[in-house]
Amino acid sequence: MYRTHTCGQLRVENVNESVCLSGWVQKIRNLGAMTFIDLRDRYGITQLVIEESASEEIKRQVDKLGREFVIQVKGKVVERASKNSKIPTGEIEILITDLTILSRSDIPPFTIEDNTDGGDEIRMKYRYLDLRRNMVRKNLELRHRMAHLVRNYLDGQHFMEVETPVLIKSTPEGARDFVVPSRMNQGQFYALPQSPQTFKQLLMVAGFDRYYQIVKCFRDEDLRADRQPEFTQIDCEMSFVERKDVLEIFEGMIRHLFKEIKGIDIPELPRMSWNDAMEYYGCDKPDIRFGMQFVNLSDIAKNKDFAVFNSAEYIGAICASGCASYTRKQLDELTEFVKRPQIGAKGLVYVKYNEDGTLKSSVDKFYNETDLKQWISACKAEPGDLLLLLCGPKNKTLPQLCELRLEMGERLGLRDKNVYKPLWVVDFPLLEWDEETQRFYAMHHPFTSPNLEDVDMMETNPGAVRANAYDMVINGVEVGGGSIRIHDTTLQQRMFHCLGFTPEQAKKQFGFLLNAFKYGAPPHGGIAFGFDRLVSMFAGLDSIRDTIAFPKNNSGRDVMIDSPSEISEEQFKELGIKLNL
Amino acid sequence: MYRTHTCGQLRVENVNESVCLSGWVQKIRNLGAMTFIDLRDRYGITQLVIEESASEEIKRQVDKLGREFVIQVKGKVVERASKNSKIPTGEIEILITDLTILSRSDIPPFTIEDNTDGGDEIRMKYRYLDLRRNMVRKNLELRHRMAHLVRNYLDGQHFMEVETPVLIKSTPEGARDFVVPSRMNQGQFYALPQSPQTFKQLLMVAGFDRYYQIVKCFRDEDLRADRQPEFTQIDCEMSFVERKDVLEIFEGMIRHLFKEIKGIDIPELPRMSWNDAMEYYGCDKPDIRFGMQFVNLSDIAKNKDFAVFNSAEYIGAICASGCASYTRKQLDELTEFVKRPQIGAKGLVYVKYNEDGTLKSSVDKFYNETDLKQWISACKAEPGDLLLLLCGPKNKTLPQLCELRLEMGERLGLRDKNVYKPLWVVDFPLLEWDEETQRFYAMHHPFTSPNLEDVDMMETNPGAVRANAYDMVINGVEVGGGSIRIHDTTLQQRMFHCLGFTPEQAKKQFGFLLNAFKYGAPPHGGIAFGFDRLVSMFAGLDSIRDTIAFPKNNSGRDVMIDSPSEISEEQFKELGIKLNL
Repeated sequence: MYRTHTCGQLRVENVNESVCLSGWVQKIRNLGAMTFIDLRDRYGITQLVIEESASEEIKRQVDKLGREFVIQVKGKVVERASKNSKIPTGEIEILITDLTILSRSDIPPFTIEDNTDGGDEIRMKYRYLDLRRNMVRKNLELRHRMAHLVRNYLDGQHFMEVETPVLIKSTPEGARDFVVPSRMNQGQFYALPQSPQTFKQLLMVAGFDRYYQIVKCFRDEDLRADRQPEFTQIDCEMSFVERKDVLEIFEGMIRHLFKEIKGIDIPELPRMSWNDAMEYYGCDKPDIRFGMQFVNLSDIAKNKDFAVFNSAEYIGAICASGCASYTRKQLDELTEFVKRPQIGAKGLVYVKYNEDGTLKSSVDKFYNETDLKQWISACKAEPGDLLLLLCGPKNKTLPQLCELRLEMGERLGLRDKNVYKPLWVVDFPLLEWDEETQRFYAMHHPFTSPNLEDVDMMETNPGAVRANAYDMVINGVEVGGGSIRIHDTTLQQRMFHCLGFTPEQAKKQFGFLLNAFKYGAPPHGGIAFGFDRLVSMFAGLDSIRDTIAFPKNNSGRDVMIDSPSEISEEQFKELGIKLNL
Repeated sequence: MYRTHTCGQLRVENVNESVCLSGWVQKIRNLGAMTFIDLRDRYGITQLVIEESASEEIKRQVDKLGREFVIQVKGKVVERASKNSKIPTGEIEILITDLTILSRSDIPPFTIEDNTDGGDEIRMKYRYLDLRRNMVRKNLELRHRMAHLVRNYLDGQHFMEVETPVLIKSTPEGARDFVVPSRMNQGQFYALPQSPQTFKQLLMVAGFDRYYQIVKCFRDEDLRADRQPEFTQIDCEMSFVERKDVLEIFEGMIRHLFKEIKGIDIPELPRMSWNDAMEYYGCDKPDIRFGMQFVNLSDIAKNKDFAVFNSAEYIGAICASGCASYTRKQLDELTEFVKRPQIGAKGLVYVKYNEDGTLKSSVDKFYNETDLKQWISACKAEPGDLLLLLCGPKNKTLPQLCELRLEMGERLGLRDKNVYKPLWVVDFPLLEWDEETQRFYAMHHPFTSPNLEDVDMMETNPGAVRANAYDMVINGVEVGGGSIRIHDTTLQQRMFHCLGFTPEQAKKQFGFLLNAFKYGAPPHGGIAFGFDRLVSMFAGLDSIRDTIAFPKNNSGRDVMIDSPSEISEEQFKELGIKLNL
């Protein structure tokens, strides 16, 4: 037997017990003739003591030890003279009577501590050592716990977890598929699923009523901080539901997670239309931890001598509370910020509403106090506030103002990582016009249902039709999204018509699902959450990489195993393919 | 709102309530002026009644209905005159006041009933309809429940579920990998994992202590009834454990499943050595629901005039209880059975120990009563029993006798599907000699630890070294297997030496794991269960296909979606490969 207890288990109640522990040597300290060892495992750290009176054999063994050696020790639990209140085992230590080295360790390439000296690259290369660090392991523990809570919540709501296939047929539209050559059907390829969308809809046709799956999905796209080629979704679908039913269930799920993990009671989630999100926050994933909503000054700020405004389609302002005292330098920084190429504004207009009630703006030449007071009033600014204005074509200015708002939120400390403000964004447009191909594309996918009150516009004004779709957004991050699907064949045909598909094209691409719909499809809808992103949000991380045990690096390689690898001539032949470099 | 209740929910307590239900039309019966509809969903069936007094509008709607239409109805719950005790809702019915057709259905290609008229092929083609059948859906519900129970059991034992990568580097040895061309690293390929073996060992090095995962694995092999190209494993690994620790935990898991699913208390699992399994059952997965163990008659049945026996390396017998009354025809059938090419015995010798104490055998010419009595006594046969003997080279005769034993068990009704006899088979040989390549192969994999008492024979008599490996076998089916791994670098090198690997080869093939082992590898071991097989066993099915929502057919195609598909010229180019047919 390798241990009677883990390294996180012993307490003062265990004093005088003979115990056996196994773990990794975290630290060795020699204090005169005594040696102290911190022994670590997943569950905690226990202090071992080798007294001056210990046997020569033990002392010889101790002399050989180094960091990260794996040892087994036997000894007696004693109460510590000087207790360590920082760790749960801090009241006791073990007086060692036996010590066995189970496994030696080379000197690790970085220290296995919360504050490690290892850089990003080396920690990824030796991921198995990085995973030993509390901080990283805790993320994986959090991931495990969240998956467990999600499963138990959904089980309680009568959802069935059903595994859908990984080797599937490639379906067009969407991101690039990974493909898998088929040996049994030479010249043909499986695709890895980008999501189990088709299969979950088939399960609804099959009458499964409530399906979920925590499932790996795949996209052959270039990597970014928040995107891995393989990623995990909480994928769900329900029958006989309307939008409100789906929102209720999954609002419940997210509140359950916040309650269990963070101890936070999240109130009912606000629902914001996509139009409002764009109009007041400039993006479809508003961070509503703070206000600072956009005020449209297009009407009241024109018709003076300021040509820039007069020629602008849109003039928008935000009101930064208490920032009237910003210096020239700070204002210049903000101007530089909005002029960055990735943001692309031409310039920034400000109005200081000073504490003493006076006004100072960058456009004093063109606007008198009465003009500016109108802006102040429209923005509901208070003395001490700063108005920041951007202008230009509306579809470009809104995202620029969004970036500026987030930057101001950051500067003002309004984006606290410990505050969570989830909301639903609803009523997305059903279709997106693509200039290049001169056709509409489904914003979500071709099975997303239009809002029923907009159906009449599908032929006359397709761009104005709203989708019965919804995203869950937390602190500016889209964590999940879904829609009510079309289950009516006639409506589906009208949708394909909007997308410019001939009946033959629709049949070729989606025939299996359309066939299934002939045999009694229930009304249904669903949602999918990005699990990696959800975990990283709960872990307070910006990147999803540390929520994954073995992430890929930027060239799509496993951090250690250095995949992909070459395959043999023979294997190529069996698969009926050949390199073409 | 589509429903206030499901079709399995209403009871006599709900009488007089106004309810709304949605579901599929299972059956329509016209009884005079009344119409009865069985409305079905995942949760059950509820009887709807359309009375003579119903509105013309409802009657018109009812006239349009057919099987598998999806409808929504409103009405009042009433107590039935003639109750149906076979279904939970059998005491009530719904008097319909509103009926809406949500979705029409073509006539289904087979009836959606427990006893369907659909053949295997058509049911697979329309899998979404087959999944509507109670029997099939119940298998998937069982699968869901088993996964849930397994997770909760392992969570309770401090196992952490960790997701391991799906796009990995190909590792040699083992079955054929599926490969995935990498666009980011042209000319190179990912492999899909045959198991997360390497990653779970790395997680042990990382100090995760107890890992599990219910995970998809992949093998590019031809399909069989119990083999799909993608399959699901319950994959587990533990640190600081010996064999007994692993066996205890997973014995506990399987007993938990039997208790929760079947209400059966499984006693402690017997442990049988691989040698005994081979000697007494002729295979490494003995069905111990019945005895009929082999008796080795090699010593006592030789040295008479029967040349067949005299020249045989091995003579083995089984004793079939109460079969002395077998007719000539029955014995001929058995002889034919053992002579089938897939079994391959040359012939069958029998001895009838008649109820009256007389003996009758197929070798009376060569053996007198005293001789035969010796056999009878060695086999502990009783009057009325039948001895069946096979002979030949031992390694061929044992499996033949195994087949004969199973056949006799079947004929005697000793293989009851409702009786479960799990056991551990332990002490497998570490190595298997391959005549063709003239080398040893790891029976499990190269990281399997030898039994420590056999380590000294690794160089002198490698074939005799036993592995610290174990299989769980239930009713003749191997449901899981694993081993204690090597964590000692020196022992690992000796193992590689046994396998004929040079240090360079070992480094090339397993370098990442060997590197990790340099930094303090804990003693560890694990196990993996075939989840599809485990579910099919609990479902009482012979094939795993009906435990999977969307299985592949024999050419590796999805039953409906007809994957794999062709990919475009352009995609080939991006991947840097070309067809070579």
